[in-house]
Amino acid sequence: MQVVVPFAATEPKTRLADVLTPAERTAFARAMLADVLTAVVEAGHEPTVLATAPLDLETLDLEAAVRDAGSVAVDDRPLTEAVNARLPERGDGGDDGTHIDPVAVVMADLALATADALEALFSAAADVAVVPGRGAGTNALVVDHPEFRVDYHGASYLDHREIAHDVGATLETVDSFRLGTDIDEPADLVEVLVHGTETDRAPARLREFGFELERTDGRVTVARLEESRPK
Amino acid sequence: MQVVVPFAATEPKTRLADVLTPAERTAFARAMLADVLTAVVEAGHEPTVLATAPLDLETLDLEAAVRDAGSVAVDDRPLTEAVNARLPERGDGGDDGTHIDPVAVVMADLALATADALEALFSAAADVAVVPGRGAGTNALVVDHPEFRVDYHGASYLDHREIAHDVGATLETVDSFRLGTDIDEPADLVEVLVHGTETDRAPARLREFGFELERTDGRVTVARLEESRPK
Repeated sequence: MQVVVPFAATEPKTRLADVLTPAERTAFARAMLADVLTAVVEAGHEPTVLATAPLDLETLDLEAAVRDAGSVAVDDRPLTEAVNARLPERGDGGDDGTHIDPVAVVMADLALATADALEALFSAAADVAVVPGRGAGTNALVVDHPEFRVDYHGASYLDHREIAHDVGATLETVDSFRLGTDIDEPADLVEVLVHGTETDRAPARLREFGFELERTDGRVTVARLEESRPK
Repeated sequence: MQVVVPFAATEPKTRLADVLTPAERTAFARAMLADVLTAVVEAGHEPTVLATAPLDLETLDLEAAVRDAGSVAVDDRPLTEAVNARLPERGDGGDDGTHIDPVAVVMADLALATADALEALFSAAADVAVVPGRGAGTNALVVDHPEFRVDYHGASYLDHREIAHDVGATLETVDSFRLGTDIDEPADLVEVLVHGTETDRAPARLREFGFELERTDGRVTVARLEESRPK
């Protein structure tokens, strides 16, 4: 199985602009990418970062084993096109033209990803296995069908169900809070701090930036220490 | 295993007040409760609704087998106290004083609950198994320890981890998007319509009320047909 991790290498995570400077957003996005790559390698696979611009894995905070297992492919086309160019086609991977090598696509902002959660996805038996995020996004999927193609525009989880149906592919929805939580908006930062482990880079970055959990009566939010806020 | 489903029988789901009338909120909350009870029975258990006021299961839209398997216990105390009164104590369930019967607590607003997702929770081996929701809530848990007690006030998932640690109970976090999605706010209604099945009552109610998925370019939202809006 190939595991592709799409990554917006320039101006990532603009929806966090209210709480993070551009430099912080870049550092945070790279920390999440490093956590995702680590989880993929721990799950026994060699991830390919599908980056919109050149990226040197040496500049990420990665264990040597993860860095060595990873590679980068640059493709500046929109996400859907770049991913589709990586999906299996009939004849890939086997001389007889029938076997194809499945391709997994795991978004780089799944900061809560763990090897266990990824293994549950990677071991799904269907032609297409999808992990939906909130709002019918597609946070991760595995494609083991030569005709299935992605369409990340709009309600992609619903689209992917339809596309699978249209090409005669079986589809399984994989139930995971960890993989179903993509980190896009300020409210999502709570999840990084609540569920991240001590060795994860993304929560460490947030703490460096001065974020901490604020436990009020009704719920948990993140707060940024006054003196650490961007001026 | 006992399965307890806490249910606010009066004025439920006030955070949906912007989009649903009080009567609609009551009907929707009861539809979600019926879906949760059905999933519990499909998972092989007999649910007890822990209601804040008297509730007649005959008035819920339930299959006969589910209605027959269910029961109601009324407890008008705050959630934490009412649940703690139901948790196992040392000596429960066995003559020798060592065996206890585990108790599961599944919230009534987990509209996406399925038998599969519940079975994954119910089969957890730890003394305490917790399904967190967004914002560090506790959406469901199974307690198989005589000293563990819940505290739903505030960041309950974090509190429950601490409480388990303090009483020497092992804790497992169960990873489920379906059980991790509680339906509290208008934005959550999208998930009911995206992930509900054809036989589920909660999405059927929303459609009766005039809600439908609105698939714009960027994301999916729910929209309510103009003529169906409360005046």
